[in-house]
Amino acid sequence: MTYTFANRIGSLAPSAIREILKVTQDPSVISFAAGNPAAFAFPVAEIEELSAELLASSGAEALQYGVSEGYGPLREQTKARIKRKFGLGNENDQLIITSGGQQVLELSAKVLGNEGDVVICETPSFVGALNAFRSYGLQLAGVPVLEDGMDLEAVEKILASGRRVAFIYTIPTYQNPTGRTMSLAKRQRLLELAEKYNVLILEDSPYLELSYEEAPPPPIKALDRSGRVIYAGSYSKVFSPGIRVGFALAPAPVISKLIVAKQVSDVHTNLFFSMLLSKYLEKYDLDKHISFVCREYRKKRDVMLAAAERHLSGVTMTRPGGGLFLWGELPPGYDGFELCKLASEKKVAAVPGSAFLPDETQTSGGFRLNFSLPTEEQIEKGMALLGQAVADLLKGR
Amino acid sequence: MTYTFANRIGSLAPSAIREILKVTQDPSVISFAAGNPAAFAFPVAEIEELSAELLASSGAEALQYGVSEGYGPLREQTKARIKRKFGLGNENDQLIITSGGQQVLELSAKVLGNEGDVVICETPSFVGALNAFRSYGLQLAGVPVLEDGMDLEAVEKILASGRRVAFIYTIPTYQNPTGRTMSLAKRQRLLELAEKYNVLILEDSPYLELSYEEAPPPPIKALDRSGRVIYAGSYSKVFSPGIRVGFALAPAPVISKLIVAKQVSDVHTNLFFSMLLSKYLEKYDLDKHISFVCREYRKKRDVMLAAAERHLSGVTMTRPGGGLFLWGELPPGYDGFELCKLASEKKVAAVPGSAFLPDETQTSGGFRLNFSLPTEEQIEKGMALLGQAVADLLKGR
Repeated sequence: MTYTFANRIGSLAPSAIREILKVTQDPSVISFAAGNPAAFAFPVAEIEELSAELLASSGAEALQYGVSEGYGPLREQTKARIKRKFGLGNENDQLIITSGGQQVLELSAKVLGNEGDVVICETPSFVGALNAFRSYGLQLAGVPVLEDGMDLEAVEKILASGRRVAFIYTIPTYQNPTGRTMSLAKRQRLLELAEKYNVLILEDSPYLELSYEEAPPPPIKALDRSGRVIYAGSYSKVFSPGIRVGFALAPAPVISKLIVAKQVSDVHTNLFFSMLLSKYLEKYDLDKHISFVCREYRKKRDVMLAAAERHLSGVTMTRPGGGLFLWGELPPGYDGFELCKLASEKKVAAVPGSAFLPDETQTSGGFRLNFSLPTEEQIEKGMALLGQAVADLLKGR
Repeated sequence: MTYTFANRIGSLAPSAIREILKVTQDPSVISFAAGNPAAFAFPVAEIEELSAELLASSGAEALQYGVSEGYGPLREQTKARIKRKFGLGNENDQLIITSGGQQVLELSAKVLGNEGDVVICETPSFVGALNAFRSYGLQLAGVPVLEDGMDLEAVEKILASGRRVAFIYTIPTYQNPTGRTMSLAKRQRLLELAEKYNVLILEDSPYLELSYEEAPPPPIKALDRSGRVIYAGSYSKVFSPGIRVGFALAPAPVISKLIVAKQVSDVHTNLFFSMLLSKYLEKYDLDKHISFVCREYRKKRDVMLAAAERHLSGVTMTRPGGGLFLWGELPPGYDGFELCKLASEKKVAAVPGSAFLPDETQTSGGFRLNFSLPTEEQIEKGMALLGQAVADLLKGR
């Protein structure tokens, strides 16, 4: 028989990145296509110890149903930590624990957007977010990501057009895929626009703590005085993605709707790992762990940047101060997708820029390279191979 | 400022059950309001051992990102197990691992229903499912749950009405909240109706393995020859709910859409516990564990039934062959909500039948009692208190 699906889902294809990830399970392929943390980013020994402790002392509680807003102590610890470190949150805000940062994006789309509403987003942007918005029939209106962040003139043009805007979606710090960071001035100006046009901002910030040089500007949420920002955070990049623990900090009325939506989605986030993470935050120094991870990632970033200099002649690379990705731009007229096809023949994987476009019918001269997962040796070797692919493409072979 | 929410979520209130559950955190209250397994249903010692093993041998893998369809070995083991035990699945079916059984319901609503479409469901039914459907703007059309399951004449009337039906939702085995089980004849007839009117059936089956007497009829999915059934299963009731691991078995085209929706929802299910559960299934005998749990639950059920006999004069109780719940019906004209209010004054908690109604404006003379979580002593004491509340209500105090 044939099956009929809901309109909202009918046109949604599996993300190109995840399809490429499957291909890269071939161990002979050097992959710059992932978005995964390195294994050293997971405090495995500490998790081993805490897991044993937790099961011995509170196994029955940790394996039982929990509440939809998340494990109380972890909510409090997370709130206190992001307040202390980034000035996030005021007396009108609440926090919900979610099944990874992705769930914040999906639940926000669900509670804020009616079908046909517009989401203003960056182009290129994180495809997992774009697909979450598409899955509720939201219309994506992309604006370019300039050196200093979103093109705010383009944002205002859409806001002034009179179309109903559900929210503005941005990854202001070490953006995925470009690695770019929005300037402080633009953060303030974006908030002004949000107030002027009475819209909310969904600030997606999984990379904030992966900072390799000077500290980035404060989160938009920390500058917000009028309750317009939903902040999506994650423990995936600094602790473990496999456990699926993230959070949203937002004004209480928004959190209350997110809780209702969370309840019907998966009841609550994995309680065992919520409790384990809470114990970790109590007993260990997460900041110290993150410093170690950042030192290692900076080395890898630098190796990749130096290799790009040597091998990717003709390509313009970003030089991000943090995060997990470099972004390359081919000279005008060349297609990132063609480059990635040539590269995969040479057994090196990168993600074509077209995978990150709000408008999927467009092409992109860009491509994304991940430096957190490959070893330094793989980076050296893979970049040389990628350089051959670039040379082949540019000389029109 | 004031916030505007999407239509689909605006009217959705937090589930009455979960609100009541919070009240029952008062330790002096005897709660029959939960749906939680007993602590002895979690194989804590085995989980402790496997957790240590898993972290030592494959920590970096278990804490890393996984694929959206779920951990491969667990998918295969689950498929093989439900085929062997219940005849579930054929060559056209696939399986996805989900964040609990709840996520199957939410994702199914998302991929199958357009706003305004009808879901035919039982009345009363599981409120978590009803709210998941409501959260996509689906219209609930309830049909009574008779002694032998859904009123199929009422089902056919709706199907014949010409309204667009997204799917039929049923909990055929040890239904929540009534404890009733659909007869084999009705299962077959329901499939015939689904074929005649070309609709899908969402079979929610979290209690199938909690069977205390003769085996229930085969799942509807096991009788399905034409690919019309999505089967929602769960490890929550037989292993642990806190780890949030469930699954859907369905025709491949449906699973493929569920995977896409899962990807944008939470990327993938907790990988650590997917791997741990896989190891458990390899090394231990889940069936033996379930037999032990069922023996204990049967005792509790019998204690509650006997206490109902002694104390709840005037109430008609179901006598379910499995599951977690008894269902009581007050004499005509009395309201289950009034009973539950009186009961809570006496420090015993039950869930009023109105919480389970597709049409929330209706009242119900029913109430739901859980026997898995309270101890036998609590059951004895709580039922005596509940009996006083019933007597007070019936003599019109």
